[in-house]
Amino acid sequence: ADIAAGKAKAAACAGCHGADGIAANPAYPNLAGQHAQYLVAAMQAYKTGARNHAVMKAMVGSLSDEDMENIAAYYESLKK
Amino acid sequence: ADIAAGKAKAAACAGCHGADGIAANPAYPNLAGQHAQYLVAAMQAYKTGARNHAVMKAMVGSLSDEDMENIAAYYESLKK
Repeated sequence: ADIAAGKAKAAACAGCHGADGIAANPAYPNLAGQHAQYLVAAMQAYKTGARNHAVMKAMVGSLSDEDMENIAAYYESLKK
Repeated sequence: ADIAAGKAKAAACAGCHGADGIAANPAYPNLAGQHAQYLVAAMQAYKTGARNHAVMKAMVGSLSDEDMENIAAYYESLKK
């Protein structure tokens, strides 16, 4: 995966998940250091609606599988 | 929340999420250092079926709200 490309794409996520992957609002999950495989599965679930979340569906709706892999690798690479 | 009580209850979770909250299998999320509020919301979603996951529904199905608060506080207290 391309972590640099993932970091660029993840700029859109920082509003809720934090610029460093630590969410300021405790209602939102920290993503820093999370398993990339799990993050991809979660994004896919939001995209398909398996997980029902309007905001996340809107955020990931336009992402390709490759984008998701890159974003997930970026967050996994961040130290907690 | 009662972190000690949470730790005792979380023994059942260690099989997938790791004794230290770091999942050996990358398909499962790390829970160590995650926001307690998010963890409670996730457990509630598995319990109600808002998140459709047979194993997690079985795992959290018998937990009280207080159990979930304690378990979540325990995992939040773990350093990544």
